[in-house]
Amino acid sequence: MIDKTHIKNLKKLIGEENVKDDKAHQIAYSYDATREHYEPDAVLFPRDENDVSKILKYCNEHKIPVVPRGAGSGFTGGALPKEGGIVLAVEKYMNKILEIDMENMVARVQPGVINKDLQRAVEDVGLFYPPDPASQEYSTIGGNVAENAGGMRAAKYGITKDYVMALRAVLPNGDIIRAGKKTIKDVAGYNITGILVGSEGTLAVITEITLKLISKPKLTKTVMGIFPSVDAAMQAVYKSLAGGANPVAMEFLDNLTIKAVEEKYSKGLPTDAGAILISDIDGNVEEEIDYQIKLLEKFFTQNGCLDFKIAKDEKEAADIWFARRNASQSITIYGSKKINEDITVPRSKLPELLKEIEKVGKKYGLKIPCFGHTGDGNVHTNVMVDKDDPQEVKKGYEAIEEIFKITVKLGGTLSGEHGIGLSKAPYMKIAFSEEELNLFRQIKKAFDPNNILNPGKMGL
Amino acid sequence: MIDKTHIKNLKKLIGEENVKDDKAHQIAYSYDATREHYEPDAVLFPRDENDVSKILKYCNEHKIPVVPRGAGSGFTGGALPKEGGIVLAVEKYMNKILEIDMENMVARVQPGVINKDLQRAVEDVGLFYPPDPASQEYSTIGGNVAENAGGMRAAKYGITKDYVMALRAVLPNGDIIRAGKKTIKDVAGYNITGILVGSEGTLAVITEITLKLISKPKLTKTVMGIFPSVDAAMQAVYKSLAGGANPVAMEFLDNLTIKAVEEKYSKGLPTDAGAILISDIDGNVEEEIDYQIKLLEKFFTQNGCLDFKIAKDEKEAADIWFARRNASQSITIYGSKKINEDITVPRSKLPELLKEIEKVGKKYGLKIPCFGHTGDGNVHTNVMVDKDDPQEVKKGYEAIEEIFKITVKLGGTLSGEHGIGLSKAPYMKIAFSEEELNLFRQIKKAFDPNNILNPGKMGL
Repeated sequence: MIDKTHIKNLKKLIGEENVKDDKAHQIAYSYDATREHYEPDAVLFPRDENDVSKILKYCNEHKIPVVPRGAGSGFTGGALPKEGGIVLAVEKYMNKILEIDMENMVARVQPGVINKDLQRAVEDVGLFYPPDPASQEYSTIGGNVAENAGGMRAAKYGITKDYVMALRAVLPNGDIIRAGKKTIKDVAGYNITGILVGSEGTLAVITEITLKLISKPKLTKTVMGIFPSVDAAMQAVYKSLAGGANPVAMEFLDNLTIKAVEEKYSKGLPTDAGAILISDIDGNVEEEIDYQIKLLEKFFTQNGCLDFKIAKDEKEAADIWFARRNASQSITIYGSKKINEDITVPRSKLPELLKEIEKVGKKYGLKIPCFGHTGDGNVHTNVMVDKDDPQEVKKGYEAIEEIFKITVKLGGTLSGEHGIGLSKAPYMKIAFSEEELNLFRQIKKAFDPNNILNPGKMGL
Repeated sequence: MIDKTHIKNLKKLIGEENVKDDKAHQIAYSYDATREHYEPDAVLFPRDENDVSKILKYCNEHKIPVVPRGAGSGFTGGALPKEGGIVLAVEKYMNKILEIDMENMVARVQPGVINKDLQRAVEDVGLFYPPDPASQEYSTIGGNVAENAGGMRAAKYGITKDYVMALRAVLPNGDIIRAGKKTIKDVAGYNITGILVGSEGTLAVITEITLKLISKPKLTKTVMGIFPSVDAAMQAVYKSLAGGANPVAMEFLDNLTIKAVEEKYSKGLPTDAGAILISDIDGNVEEEIDYQIKLLEKFFTQNGCLDFKIAKDEKEAADIWFARRNASQSITIYGSKKINEDITVPRSKLPELLKEIEKVGKKYGLKIPCFGHTGDGNVHTNVMVDKDDPQEVKKGYEAIEEIFKITVKLGGTLSGEHGIGLSKAPYMKIAFSEEELNLFRQIKKAFDPNNILNPGKMGL
């Protein structure tokens, strides 16, 4: 608990109405998508960058923890005030699209802008912002940058870091800095933009983001392949891409997931299939799309695809996507608690990864439905347990730890999209050496010597 | 001058034959493309990462400067041992392509691999590594990563940083670290790869680089537009791209450059043209290329293009590219010394930038031919002076400083491709605030507390 004098002083700094330390606010800002709870002492709503600077300068002097927060939709606890202190909520005031610069094809936004709002705004003028995390309807660009959010379109278009051209940010000491430019090329000074993306709010508070936009492709088609086994589907994924296919998305559902969606929605899905692959192809001319579809059909068929379907129209495309879009909520039929991880491996390791996960499921007697973004090697792995059975929950976490070890052994990463935060902090030692962790700590200290920004995160 | 005991000890560490402190080696490794000279005390040829680790550990303990060096082809002195000490030359042993992983479309290389050798090796198997700095025939991938090299294809394909997926590196204290993965997505720990790219050898010695590859497009076409003025050409550049064109390259030559090439080679170039734009378009199907060419033709014509030419075959394409490829050497007709900078602005600012450069040329009575990568806002600006006229050389540097100020005012950067090194260090204060420079210094200290790695560079 921080001293009440601090609350008074902070109210003087940014206005009484922008500092809330009542119980309702403490509770409202105590959680995120992990469903863990840590109450902050106060919630602050900065009106602008200068407010952020004043708050950080004050908190740095008095060593008060500050946790920046967008929508609180993260899956790893990045926005949770684990050590109390201040939650710095950008969604109230710092939520404007400042500029859509058509001439240079960039957008300049404040951190509290909702991802999908930006997507819509730029698509209205014929431009395109590809990163589309599943949380796009509510997560903020600030949060997306802090966690380096991915999404379905990463196979072709990359992830958040590939679109962040420049940032404005406030350092823990209150210094306001700019990093990057509205230019593709910029080799002056260290790549501060690069290190801030994915730093999970531990190095600086991002106050403005300049994003690269691209032209919106005029055409999109959707295809689906049904496979006899997960292995066949995984072979098809990496062989298609290595063979020159360049799909926007290459999503997969395993048999457990297919069955779950079918049980919930009765859509006539092939419940005996080992796996389904769903892919979008985009471009500006029909012939280009046909070329890509032919490539996919060839590699799918060569790898055992039983049925290759091309959606005739938007309705058929929506039907195909229905199963994928409802995967996450459907698998709850297997357990009241989902230990959900977003491991990622080099694409050629997908067949082995999925085989190993199956073995882990058998070993622990747990259902582990998998689906996700196989086009970039990212598999959402869901260990399903009964939340009221502590033994089973414990087994679930043991299974997850084993899956992390397998992932790292296959050259993969603990997190493709969600970050480390609190949830994955215990596993950092699986992925990093003591020398590497030490380097992270040195970098943290260079930005934040008093450790006020999002303390206790990332296992540092 | 370092103590001779150190040379003896280093010989013990990595083998006598791999440590050279004779005059011939000191001279051979004293220069780079800036033509400045600083002799090292010794040149070391590490055989592998462990040698690098041993050398750095030793030099860190004894505070001996270490300057990593690829081909020494940099334009800003990044590889010059300004404070003496050790040049660590990777080109002798650490020059192997370790792996071309077709399944995951990545290459793993040692830092001394020549850029073009990698390009050729991956193209032989149908893959593509786009970054193509003008130095591609001799510059190394290690140097490219250290300077975040660009090239002509950046407008469509981006620059070195967009292809570096993972690194192995040795920290100044000798610690060997890994950063990144063979995966598109990876949000575990800080983005060390991101901060090392473009760090100009000041933070760590890169010992292995994992690069993203893409499928090689099957078709390429070349077009050229002749414009009455630089302004018309610059308008055409940014309006084409904002209008949906996605050319691989969009290169330009101004009137002074056209005249210089014509004077040297008599190729029948339009010497009365204000500017020429040259563009490559690539893709996998003819219709896609036609679509792109039509877009370019439309926007070129709308912006005053006098003649739009599509190369019929490879010979015509080579003829079109001849002028651009010979621009740099041809402009030497205007002066024996070329003060050559690679400023970059947001594309929509190109018309204003070129106008301002013309004014600066008039003000100082100097010829400033310009050409370069306008598709990404990168203009090679060449202030031509008589090297034997100290007054004119002084004026040249004054003109350059003015051009830097204009560039920064237009939202641009001191360097699009070449880095800061020694040459641009004096101008860092034009581009960065004291707070930003201070952050750079803190980061430098976090990696390299004894300041042994490439000291005196980047204006830190």
